Amino acid sequence: MDQPTARRLLAGAPFAVLATITPEGDPHVVPCCFVLHGDSIYSAVDAKPKSTLALRRLDNLRANPAASLLVHHDDEDWSRLWWVRVDGAGRIVDEEGERGQALELLVAKYPQYRISQPPGEVMVLEIQGWRWWSQGGG
Amino acid sequence: MDQPTARRLLAGAPFAVLATITPEGDPHVVPCCFVLHGDSIYSAVDAKPKSTLALRRLDNLRANPAASLLVHHDDEDWSRLWWVRVDGAGRIVDEEGERGQALELLVAKYPQYRISQPPGEVMVLEIQGWRWWSQGGG
Repeated sequence: MDQPTARRLLAGAPFAVLATITPEGDPHVVPCCFVLHGDSIYSAVDAKPKSTLALRRLDNLRANPAASLLVHHDDEDWSRLWWVRVDGAGRIVDEEGERGQALELLVAKYPQYRISQPPGEVMVLEIQGWRWWSQGGG
Repeated sequence: MDQPTARRLLAGAPFAVLATITPEGDPHVVPCCFVLHGDSIYSAVDAKPKSTLALRRLDNLRANPAASLLVHHDDEDWSRLWWVRVDGAGRIVDEEGERGQALELLVAKYPQYRISQPPGEVMVLEIQGWRWWSQGGG
């Protein structure tokens, strides 16, 4: 796998896993929808039912911006496994212009968001590093 | 979703995502094979090609046992989404008896491991808490 392939696979994946660190210093990991735009990953708190703790990811980023986002392809045929990961700094998007653009990008990627635009906060992960792996090597 | 359902879904999933914390304090997340046994999750460094960094998860646990393992079901139909997460303390399995039992459990779950038993280290995550979510609630 090379960088353009990693980028294409990440961009095209419908779901990722976001890892952050809790104020207590523990790892926190949750699936999310997202969109890749330049060197930024945008994700929003959408209308899927949430428990109180589901917003933990936002509290985590407010206390510690370190974040990692993983996309992985699972397959019974292990020769077809791959994953792509981006590491960087996350923050809540406060600026209305950036928030509006992020929501537009998310709505363009997810038909589900056309019916119900994410009502909650938008976060951005500014990518500082890429890692990828595939069974074929790379 | 209730606890027995969460347990069944976790146990039956072929792939999970393991989150740990690097010595630098950043989140680290990687897909893995695993087996649930009582209140323990076992995983092994298997023969899939690894870069040097792929063993990062073991270095992380040696420095900081905090670990989280997530199983998530992705679906184009968002009404069928769910995830199950266990949080706890991870460590490398040094004791030969425990290591042998873990490998037996992994081989029993994964036909792929019958052909090529994992040659690398075995880790265990002692579960301290369960979290789950499904679109249907719970």
